[in-house]
Parts: sequence; C-alpha cells; structure tokens
Amino acid sequence: MTEEEKKEGVAAVAEVSNKQVVLKAYITDGRAPRKDDMAVTVSTLPELKAPKGSGGFLVKNLYLSCDPYMRGRMRPPSPASYIPSFLPSRPIEGFGVSEVVDSDNPEFQAGDFIAGMTGWEEYTLIQKPQQLRKISRNHAVPLSYHLGLLGMPGFTAYCGLYELCSPKAGEFVFVSAASGAVGQIVGQLAKLEGCRVVGSAGSATKVVNRRLKISFSELVVLLHSWIVQKNCCRYFPQGIDIYFDNVGGEMLDAALLNMRVKGRIAVCGMVSQHAVTDSGPGIRNISNVIVKRIKMQGFLQSDFLHLYPRFLDHVTAHFLAGDIVYVEDVDDGLESAPAALAGLFTGENIGKKVVRVVPPESRNSMN
Amino acid sequence: MTEEEKKEGVAAVAEVSNKQVVLKAYITDGRAPRKDDMAVTVSTLPELKAPKGSGGFLVKNLYLSCDPYMRGRMRPPSPASYIPSFLPSRPIEGFGVSEVVDSDNPEFQAGDFIAGMTGWEEYTLIQKPQQLRKISRNHAVPLSYHLGLLGMPGFTAYCGLYELCSPKAGEFVFVSAASGAVGQIVGQLAKLEGCRVVGSAGSATKVVNRRLKISFSELVVLLHSWIVQKNCCRYFPQGIDIYFDNVGGEMLDAALLNMRVKGRIAVCGMVSQHAVTDSGPGIRNISNVIVKRIKMQGFLQSDFLHLYPRFLDHVTAHFLAGDIVYVEDVDDGLESAPAALAGLFTGENIGKKVVRVVPPESRNSMN
Repeated sequence: MTEEEKKEGVAAVAEVSNKQVVLKAYITDGRAPRKDDMAVTVSTLPELKAPKGSGGFLVKNLYLSCDPYMRGRMRPPSPASYIPSFLPSRPIEGFGVSEVVDSDNPEFQAGDFIAGMTGWEEYTLIQKPQQLRKISRNHAVPLSYHLGLLGMPGFTAYCGLYELCSPKAGEFVFVSAASGAVGQIVGQLAKLEGCRVVGSAGSATKVVNRRLKISFSELVVLLHSWIVQKNCCRYFPQGIDIYFDNVGGEMLDAALLNMRVKGRIAVCGMVSQHAVTDSGPGIRNISNVIVKRIKMQGFLQSDFLHLYPRFLDHVTAHFLAGDIVYVEDVDDGLESAPAALAGLFTGENIGKKVVRVVPPESRNSMN
Repeated sequence: MTEEEKKEGVAAVAEVSNKQVVLKAYITDGRAPRKDDMAVTVSTLPELKAPKGSGGFLVKNLYLSCDPYMRGRMRPPSPASYIPSFLPSRPIEGFGVSEVVDSDNPEFQAGDFIAGMTGWEEYTLIQKPQQLRKISRNHAVPLSYHLGLLGMPGFTAYCGLYELCSPKAGEFVFVSAASGAVGQIVGQLAKLEGCRVVGSAGSATKVVNRRLKISFSELVVLLHSWIVQKNCCRYFPQGIDIYFDNVGGEMLDAALLNMRVKGRIAVCGMVSQHAVTDSGPGIRNISNVIVKRIKMQGFLQSDFLHLYPRFLDHVTAHFLAGDIVYVEDVDDGLESAPAALAGLFTGENIGKKVVRVVPPESRNSMN
C-alpha cells in the first residue's frame, strides 16, 4: 500500500504469495521434457479475490494432472498442433481439481469443487470456465480420481474402446502401457465386456502391481521387439481383435503382425516415439492392414465430449460396484511437479501420475 | 479312341486342344512375379461338353483380367493368406469374361455370357458357379469392361471410396496409381461427388493419357519421396481429406504428413511394396494418425458383396451418361498373358490390364 493510498483511506489488503511452475523455454528438438525445462517461482496475488466485473473465479488448486499430451504444448507454436503451446515464463496449464475461493461468476460459489483446465500454481483465476465440471461435495469417488478415472484419461479410454473398437464378448484385446492412466481403464472396461485382455507394461515393477494384475487376464512385460513379437504370439495364439495403442513404434508393428481379420486399432498415444527422431525404423508391417481388413484410427477425446455424461455414469457405477480399481502415483507439493511430468517420458510412474498441491491435513474440506 | 472303344461302337468324339497358362512353381522369396514364372502349355479336352451329372458348365474364355492380388496366390500356401494359393502346374485362376459352350447346370445355357472366376486357358469347366454374374447379351457396356469398370476393380473403388471414405463435395481427394484399374474409377467417382481430385501415376506416359486427364482435376507424376512430399504440399495446400492408397510405402508416408484433421485413408493396395523386403524404411509418419484423428482402413471388396447390385446400377448409369471413361490396356492371346501379369509389377500397363483370349473377328457373337 502506498503512502497515497493510506492518505485516501483505502483499506489495507494482505498480498498472497502464489507458487507457480513455469516453462522456462520451448523445447525445440525432438527430445522428451526434462525436469529442468521447468522452474518453480513465486508470484503474488493482491488478495484472494476474483476481481469484480471479471466474470471469473479464483480457485485453490488441490491436485494437478501429469499427462503425456502436455509435451506437445512445450514445443514452439505450430499450425500443425491441435492445442496451443504454453507461454514461456508463464505457469504451465493442465487438468486439475480445485476449490473455488472467491467468485464473480454466479454459476460458481466459494467452496465449489471443480475439475478442468487450471494453472500449475497454488491459485488460479479462471475466466473462461470451458469444459469445467463441478464435483458434488459428497461425491463417492476420491477427488484426485476426477483427473484420471473420471477425467480425461478415463474418458480417452472410454471413447477409444467403445467408439472406435466396439468390443464384443470373447474378443482378444491387447493394451499397451496397461498400467498407465488410460491403459488400466481400457483393460478393465474390456474385461467387463467379456473380452480376454492382455496388457503390457514397460517394466517388471509395473507388472507386479497386484491391484492392476487382478483386473487383467494377463499383465505382461513386453520390451524389445523380438520379445514383443514372440510374446504377442504366445499370449494371443488366435490373434488380436482389438489393440489399444498407447506406445507406437515396435509395439504397434508387433501388434499389426498379430492382428486378426477385421481387427481394430485405436491409436491413442505413442509415448515410445516422443523422443524418436526420424532415424528410427518406422512401421514395417502396415500391409497387414489390407490383408486383415484392419481399421486403425487415431482420436482425441475432445472430439467426443457429448459422450462425457454417459461415460461418467458408466464408470462411476462400475467403480462404486467394485468392478474397477484405479492405481495412482501421487507426488506431494508443486516443487515435485517438474520431475513428475518429466518422469512420464522415462516410464517412472506406476499408474496415473498426480501432483497433490495441498496435503489433506492442510485442508478442512474433502479427501 | 481305343481299339476297344471302336469295337464297342462308341461314337467317335473329336478331342479339343486347350491352351493353358500354368504356374511353374511357387515364388518363395519377396520378389514380384516374372514372365517366366508361368508357362503356356497345351492340354486336351475329350470334347466340348460339360460332363453329364457334373452340375457344371463348360465356358470359352474371352477376356482374362490381370490383377495385382494374384501375386499372393503365387506364393506357397499360408494360413495368413486370405485367398488360396494357385496349384503349381495347373492353370492360373482369375477373373474372366466367358461364353457358356455347354451346360449341365439348368441356370446356365450355352450362349450365356458370364463374368467371374475362371481359368487362364481357352476352355474351363466351372463346377462351383460362386460369385458369377451373367451379362445380358445386349448389355450396353463392352464385354471386357466387366473385368474392370464393372468388375472387381470397379467394385473395389466403389467400396473403398463410399464405404470407407464417405466423400463430401468440396473435399480434397488424392488417389495414387490413378491410371490403374481401380484408381481411375476412384478419381472419377470422387469428382462426380464434387471433390477436388488429384491423381498420381508412376510415369509421365501414364499422365499424358488424355482420356484420363480430363477425368481428374489434376493428374500428376509423383515419384521419389522428396518429390512426393513437395508435390503433396503443392497440390494440396489445404491438405488431403481422403487418400485412396494403391501404392503404400513412401507415398503413404507422404500422404500421412499432408492429411487434414479427420482425414480418411482407404488402404487398397501397396503395389510399391510387392518386391520390398524388410530392409525398407517403413512408415515414419504414423503419429499423424493421432494428431489429425485419421481413420486408416484396409479392406477387401469381397467383404461388401451385398453392395454389388447397387454398385452396378450406379456405375453403369454414370458410364452410359458419359460421366465416366475407362482406359484399358489389352494384350492379345494367351501367350501374352504371363508378360501381361508380370508387367503390372513393373508398372508397364496404362489402364486396366486385360488379356483378350479370342480376337473379336474369331467370334460370331458380341464385342
């Protein structure tokens, strides 16, 4: 407060510090993000209020979601991208679960819990509440699960499996990155449809996760291509009807070789390819697409948003009935966020990677 | 006739020679078929009759179709193949237009014209008349066009374009091998739907074909990959909505790079890959499938046979209205058949490759 303000009798307001995770600079080569591409800084807010007339609302961020697609936003702006780049020196954006602190928008009240796009910081002023979802205070699903099971990854699993692959009882389903945020839901939903599901994960540690293991017919480690091809044959002696691809590269190539006639491939992600330059081997088995009449389709969950309510009903009901488990990998504090995000690309997470900004003991509200 | 037959008073019947094109031996490596994989031999028929009680009918083959898929039948039998291998030393089988000479099947009469599977020989006894189509004697479309425009290639074009790609007016369509049996129909049908169509062909000779040129928005030569990528950008500054792939390899890779959001790729053939072993570069741009939400689908026309009547009506009407032209590349005589088939894989044909077994002047019937 300035001397002038004091003279004019303006009430003193306490400035609030706001810790933020910012992108230092764009990643201009093909490599995966590293922890030191980001920095934790502290800015200040004049007060914990949404400015009058802004139509926005101020939230306290509780959980932040680390997702592989975010790598695309760390590249320089490009017309080819489906999503805008982050702004250097500004907080990273991503899905989060937040609590409304103050609101200038009649549709949101202090105390509301919401899931949607927010900033990687303690407090965010949300001015365009697009694709935000309110979470009822007595919702039976843990708050952080709204980033995974009931969030974008869960919805991605749902759209890819049902809309692109139409699973039928008895079909053979292969899911790569099966312990990941999306893969674990694909596998469990397919099993609930009566499919025989084999999932692969990048390390033995991921495979031994008991909670996940019980939710797949088989959860196996498939690593290098010759192992992949050998194991594809072993686990699918009759071939694969549905391959839900989170990995790309050699895994996709191996699956192509082992697909059955009229097989379907949902191409969801290619996490193996995030750091690959064009010296890699490429996909060699693409001609299987013809002989086996394979449908291979890429998709983004954002093209299916009209199905979100149906997805929420479907998955919530199965979760409450105990049919679906969800494995999270939670780190505490904004300081942990850069390493948490970078770790996605080295395969360090087991389950959905989440950053808990505020520990539960510092909150007087929900889980 | 033996002495014994003469004694028993069996009426003398004149043996008939039957020239045949046989497969000498299976092609066991990855190479394309060569002329000398086949031989022209002569067998004999006891008489020009369908044996009583056989339920079959004897046809005189008039036109034979050379199609790339036949290469798959020249390989040793494999459970992975969608179609049985040819039998070595036996006549090659393929689509043909034939005239019934004698019949023990009440549904077929001497003088009937039929299109369907037959042998590469002068006369064939057909015992399983599956997927055969009778051609009315006064059909307004030339007989040989029943192998291309109204045959399997035309139907392939129809299914791939309409069932897989759903073309809409104003969309940008790219067809490779556009002067081939399938490609030329895809391009013309798409143009009739109001699409802007660019076709590519493997040589300048093919592109200067005036009849084809007028039926495409552009018909261009796209050869090596760097030319492909440059030209894809030049001819599709706004990108490609539909790519009808007859070629595979570098062309598919270039198209993937240039696809628009929600683009569709019908994977019909990969003629460029018939002689490629796995030392080739593979497909590198597959990740475009995700970002651009591309649907890439392989297909076989045989999965859509219920649509054949609708296809015949649609294409016949357009042909009779003068909306569609069809370019054939016809060789005369069974002796020319091995080179005609082999020439498909070196790109020697301009238009649908057909072998005319019987020259028109030797027939007293139709065109």
